[in-house]
Amino acid sequence: MVDYDRIFSKRAKAMKASEIRELLKLTQRPGIISFAGGLPNPEAFPTKVTNEIVNELLDEMPEKVLQYGSTEGIPPLREALAERMRKRGMDVGSDHVLITHGSQQALDLISKVLLNPGDTIVVGSPTYLGATGAFRAFQANIKTVPVKEDGMDMDALDAKIEELEQRGEKPKFIYVVPTFQNPSGATMPGNKRKRLLEVASKYDVLIVEDSPYSLLRYEGEEQPHLISMDDEDRVVRLQTFSKILAPGFRIAWCVGPTELIDKMVIAKQATDLCTNPFGQYVAYKYIANGFIDEHINYIKELYDSKRLTMLEAMKEHFPKEAKWNRPEGGMFIWVKLPEYIDTREMFERAIQENVAYVVGDAFYVGDGGKNTMRVNFSHSSEEEIKEGIMKLGKVIKKEIKERKGKLRDTIISP
Amino acid sequence: MVDYDRIFSKRAKAMKASEIRELLKLTQRPGIISFAGGLPNPEAFPTKVTNEIVNELLDEMPEKVLQYGSTEGIPPLREALAERMRKRGMDVGSDHVLITHGSQQALDLISKVLLNPGDTIVVGSPTYLGATGAFRAFQANIKTVPVKEDGMDMDALDAKIEELEQRGEKPKFIYVVPTFQNPSGATMPGNKRKRLLEVASKYDVLIVEDSPYSLLRYEGEEQPHLISMDDEDRVVRLQTFSKILAPGFRIAWCVGPTELIDKMVIAKQATDLCTNPFGQYVAYKYIANGFIDEHINYIKELYDSKRLTMLEAMKEHFPKEAKWNRPEGGMFIWVKLPEYIDTREMFERAIQENVAYVVGDAFYVGDGGKNTMRVNFSHSSEEEIKEGIMKLGKVIKKEIKERKGKLRDTIISP
Repeated sequence: MVDYDRIFSKRAKAMKASEIRELLKLTQRPGIISFAGGLPNPEAFPTKVTNEIVNELLDEMPEKVLQYGSTEGIPPLREALAERMRKRGMDVGSDHVLITHGSQQALDLISKVLLNPGDTIVVGSPTYLGATGAFRAFQANIKTVPVKEDGMDMDALDAKIEELEQRGEKPKFIYVVPTFQNPSGATMPGNKRKRLLEVASKYDVLIVEDSPYSLLRYEGEEQPHLISMDDEDRVVRLQTFSKILAPGFRIAWCVGPTELIDKMVIAKQATDLCTNPFGQYVAYKYIANGFIDEHINYIKELYDSKRLTMLEAMKEHFPKEAKWNRPEGGMFIWVKLPEYIDTREMFERAIQENVAYVVGDAFYVGDGGKNTMRVNFSHSSEEEIKEGIMKLGKVIKKEIKERKGKLRDTIISP
Repeated sequence: MVDYDRIFSKRAKAMKASEIRELLKLTQRPGIISFAGGLPNPEAFPTKVTNEIVNELLDEMPEKVLQYGSTEGIPPLREALAERMRKRGMDVGSDHVLITHGSQQALDLISKVLLNPGDTIVVGSPTYLGATGAFRAFQANIKTVPVKEDGMDMDALDAKIEELEQRGEKPKFIYVVPTFQNPSGATMPGNKRKRLLEVASKYDVLIVEDSPYSLLRYEGEEQPHLISMDDEDRVVRLQTFSKILAPGFRIAWCVGPTELIDKMVIAKQATDLCTNPFGQYVAYKYIANGFIDEHINYIKELYDSKRLTMLEAMKEHFPKEAKWNRPEGGMFIWVKLPEYIDTREMFERAIQENVAYVVGDAFYVGDGGKNTMRVNFSHSSEEEIKEGIMKLGKVIKKEIKERKGKLRDTIISP
């Protein structure tokens, strides 16, 4: 029999089954109210509209929607997206747009064309774990900078890159989710974004602007996109239909300098030839038939109500020791418990109480975040949110009581 | 401005826009009869059935088909495929099956989990150029073995691996398209397949069995799958819905030892999270509703007729100096012209005559194949096939006449 340990690549040997995935499996047990996933609510799927679009497409152009497409993406979708972005003040043409099979694929392609094994990159701490997974698969040397309530700490970023440069570990890019960050919900204000561009320019580093949630803003003012502030071809921006149409087609797009996009197209050709044209045409018609903006408004109302219900329930049921943010958009609330609480240890108790979350330390590259958790408000019903947060409040209170007791015992005992 | 030449990875620097892609663009000019692409015929798309299936899916389970799915693929499709394969004598369960976004993605994932930069692999010469593209993106050291009329030369393979071992370049795997090979149309007989397994076992090398066309057999007897002959967990097999349903969903599957599949699943999670569930559910219903076998028979009739028309037309219009095979299945005929003909030089003349093919040397890793071409019979109508082959016959005759004249001049001149 084959000894795969001998045959696997170095990168494969470093890949481990996500522990979080295993935890998520637990949360799918019947009866559990799960705030763990990052799933859109099925009520947010425009099922009827999708059916109309599909009937129209299969009637009018089956030979296109069922055939192979070009690697860059189907031309009408690229053009429609470029036009929408131009209306939002971005100076882009369709040749700046690459359609990807989910934003995850854009992260894969960016890594593929930029990273040699051992190359340094900088991410926030905490940050989206799918991104670090993609970077790790290309053996990146991942360095972190703290994420505060208003996003990545710019002084720390500047100092970190300076230090890395001096050690000969100049980073290739900074990965950032500037708006409604996953997991922390933090949004960078405009002045901080300006500073980020300055730092990137100072050290000649690229910026990967991952923005899956930016269209889901429920309050506060829209902040400028990093790519709109870039006049040095330094920013590549990722967006997705997963949160504004449905994830089931896996249609996302990325926008960036043509030099980078062209190289990603060549890499994509070797990766999967093209993104499924069927889904691309659905996304195109979703824009062209004029459904998209109205439907985004519908999703925003749906999620905002859930967000407010969850915030209200937290206020009612969480103990004073728990702290959480009020995200202006997106799908997550970030909860911090006292330092002596380990949310991973608390997880078992939560599952027993039929409620689930994602342990916060999963979003940290190194240590950290042991006392934090990510709570999703988009997927559950409002009833589930009320009941689940009540249960989670109980779990937290019990855990705090027990740990405090143990702390006291430790202090008292010799 | 950013200097991307400084920033791109080593693998990206080695990636070049496919020259063939540029040639293919020429073939899309209006009025050109193109035998160049590898596209299914739109008549082979089950449009009506697809529409029925989609309506059913969006009616019955929109919350599933429009949502994210698991990385391995949706469970009912994995199970349905495993069941079909068991009926064909393969000993597989659903945990041996991974759904990929086209077979190209399986090639990418296999490379990702097996290849370190510089690792050796062995392919046929000629071979499918999308495969070598995937392997090159992971900086493989690609070695070749001649492909004869009955597939890869096994003596040459044995000798090549022996030689590589002695040089310390033990290959990780052999990539082979054993049935209706792209581009040569060659099919390996059973005894040769047995020998391939023996050679792989002797040197402890894996086999990647790429089999996109095996269900499209028009004559001759079915040959055993390599994976069915494997009792050492040495073979991973790739198949696709692109040729038996439609490419527009980009749904393919690969079957292999769980140790390898599990690692590919982890790699896929970092690559694109999951293959579009919408397309997966369509493929599942295509099987579950009992459409698939009948429709494959329809496609076979459609393509067989085109194949016979093309073979007949070649007999009528090609000069005696041209040689070609009679493929028992698949989508391509492989044409060899006299050694003094360069099909790349002849290409311009063909385009002027409004007919196109793929230059054969594109399928060779090193030199070779200059006098060959791949001709596709699935995509064109029978009328186009008759007219296009007549035109191509003229082009070849003219080219031979002219080159022969030049040869004579060369010999006569001092």
